[in-house]
Amino acid sequence: MVEFFSEKIVKVEFSAVPESDVILPPLSSKVVKNLILSSKLLPSLSSLVQSGMKNKPLFISNLGKNGFRLFSTGKPVSVKAGEILNFFISFPYYDGFFTELSSGSFETGYGKFFIELEQLEVIELSSIKGVSEGNFYVKFVTPALLSSKVLLPPSLKEKYKNVNPGYSLIPSVGLVVSYAYRVYRALYGNTSNMELDSKSFRLGVLSNSLSRVIGYKLKPLTVVIGNDNKGRLRTSRGFVGWMEFDIPYKKLKKAISKYLIIASYLGIGKSRGIGLGEVVVKIKS
Amino acid sequence: MVEFFSEKIVKVEFSAVPESDVILPPLSSKVVKNLILSSKLLPSLSSLVQSGMKNKPLFISNLGKNGFRLFSTGKPVSVKAGEILNFFISFPYYDGFFTELSSGSFETGYGKFFIELEQLEVIELSSIKGVSEGNFYVKFVTPALLSSKVLLPPSLKEKYKNVNPGYSLIPSVGLVVSYAYRVYRALYGNTSNMELDSKSFRLGVLSNSLSRVIGYKLKPLTVVIGNDNKGRLRTSRGFVGWMEFDIPYKKLKKAISKYLIIASYLGIGKSRGIGLGEVVVKIKS
Repeated sequence: MVEFFSEKIVKVEFSAVPESDVILPPLSSKVVKNLILSSKLLPSLSSLVQSGMKNKPLFISNLGKNGFRLFSTGKPVSVKAGEILNFFISFPYYDGFFTELSSGSFETGYGKFFIELEQLEVIELSSIKGVSEGNFYVKFVTPALLSSKVLLPPSLKEKYKNVNPGYSLIPSVGLVVSYAYRVYRALYGNTSNMELDSKSFRLGVLSNSLSRVIGYKLKPLTVVIGNDNKGRLRTSRGFVGWMEFDIPYKKLKKAISKYLIIASYLGIGKSRGIGLGEVVVKIKS
Repeated sequence: MVEFFSEKIVKVEFSAVPESDVILPPLSSKVVKNLILSSKLLPSLSSLVQSGMKNKPLFISNLGKNGFRLFSTGKPVSVKAGEILNFFISFPYYDGFFTELSSGSFETGYGKFFIELEQLEVIELSSIKGVSEGNFYVKFVTPALLSSKVLLPPSLKEKYKNVNPGYSLIPSVGLVVSYAYRVYRALYGNTSNMELDSKSFRLGVLSNSLSRVIGYKLKPLTVVIGNDNKGRLRTSRGFVGWMEFDIPYKKLKKAISKYLIIASYLGIGKSRGIGLGEVVVKIKS
C-alpha cells in the first residue's frame, strides 16, 4: 500500500467522452469509481475507495456536463456518444501518483469512455493561509448530507444514541463549518475520537452564534444512491443551493476559511466518496 | 398599575375599518399602539407598552387584510375607507381587562377607525399539556428578528461582546426553540439573567442536534421600522416563510411544543411589541 501525506491534497480533473450512448448509473460517480477499482486510473486509491473507514480523505465527483453534475433524482440519466463530460478526484498526495494518470479509451462497466487528463493541482496545506476579510459564499453543487447530531455535545452522545434526526435540510452555518473542520481532520487519519467531536462541536456552536447569513437559496433534494439487496431503491435526502455568510470575528474567520477551502477539494458531509457534498467556495468582498 | 398574572395569557382580536382612505405608518401596528397609549383600548397595558424592559410578554400585531399583515418593505402601504382589517393583542392576564375592551369609532393619529371586538381567548399555561406526536409547522407571518448570539455559550458572552452578527436569516431549529423558550420565560418577569441564558442555550443546542427538518420555504425580508431623529429610514432585516420540523425525542418534543404554542400568542424574537415575529404554529401528524 502507498503512503499518503496529510500535508498535501491532489486534485485531478479529467474529460470523459462516451463512445456510445450510455444510460448512467443513478450516481454517475460510479463510472469513475469503476475506473479506479479496475486499475485504469489511480489504482493505488483502490484500498482507500473500498475501505469501510468513516470520514475518508477522498472525493470522487459525479460526471459533469455543461456545468451540471449528472445524478438521478428518480428517472435514469443518459448521455450521448461524443458528449464531453468531466469529473475530478481529490485525495492525499502519495509518491508516484502522477504515473497512475492514464489517458485513453477504457471500458467502465457502463460502456467505453475516452478519458483524458485536463488539469492537475497539488495543494500544500501550509500554503493555505486563510483570509480575515470578506464573506464566505458556499455553493452546494450536489446534495450535501449533514447530520445535525454533529452539533450534539459529545458528553450527551451516549444518552441520545438512539435518537436519529437524519440529515439536516437547512444547513446552519455551524453545521457546515463543523463538517468542513471534520474533512480537514480526515487528512490526519482516524477521526472517530472524543477530541475531534469536542472540537468540531465547539466550532459549530461558535460559528452558529457568531455568524451573519447574508443570503441564501437552498432546496431539499432526494438523490437515488442505487438499489439494495432486494432490488429496492435506496435514496438519500440532502440539500443543494448556495449560502453566503460572514463571521464578523477575524480570528475565527481565518480558521474557518482554511477548513472551507479544504472542503472545496474534498467535499462536505457524508458520501463524499461517491460525489455527494461537492462544494464550491468563494471569498467575496 | 395593574397586577399581571404569569399563568394566563389573554389574546384579543379586533376588526378595524378605516373611515377614510389612510396611508398607514410603515408598521401598521403603530395604529394599534396608538389606541392603547391614548387610552381607547386596554389602557392598563400602556406602561408595559412604554417600558424599556427587554423581552416583554406582549404582542401587538400589525393590521391584517385578507390574511396578510400590512407593513412597508419600502413603499408606503395604504388602505381604503370601508375595508375590513383586523389585529390582535396578546398580554398576561390582569383583573378587569375585559372592561377595557371598547368598541366604537376612534381617532388613531392615522385617521379614524371603527374598532370592534371579534374574539377573546384566555389561555391557562397549566392547560397547555404539550404533545409528543407529530411534526411542528411554524409559519413566520411577519419578519422574525432572531439574533444568533442567543446560541452563544453564556460563559463566552463577555469575550465576544463586541462581535455583532446581527439577525439570522436562516433560522436553525435551535434558534427558533431558544426564542420560543425565552418568550415563555418572559411571562415570569425579568429575563436578563445567567440561568435563563444558560437554559435557553442548552435547549438551542439540543434542538439543533436532535431535530429533523422536513421542509421549508423561507426568504429574507427587510421591513421599514420608521425614521430616526435625523429623518433617515430605519429598517430591520429578518425572514418570513415556513418550516416544518420534527424532534424525534418525545420528552424534548413535549417541552418544545409548549413553548411554541406560547409563541403562537406572544410571537418570537425581537420587536414583538410592534408586531414582528408573528408566528402560526401547527402540530402536523
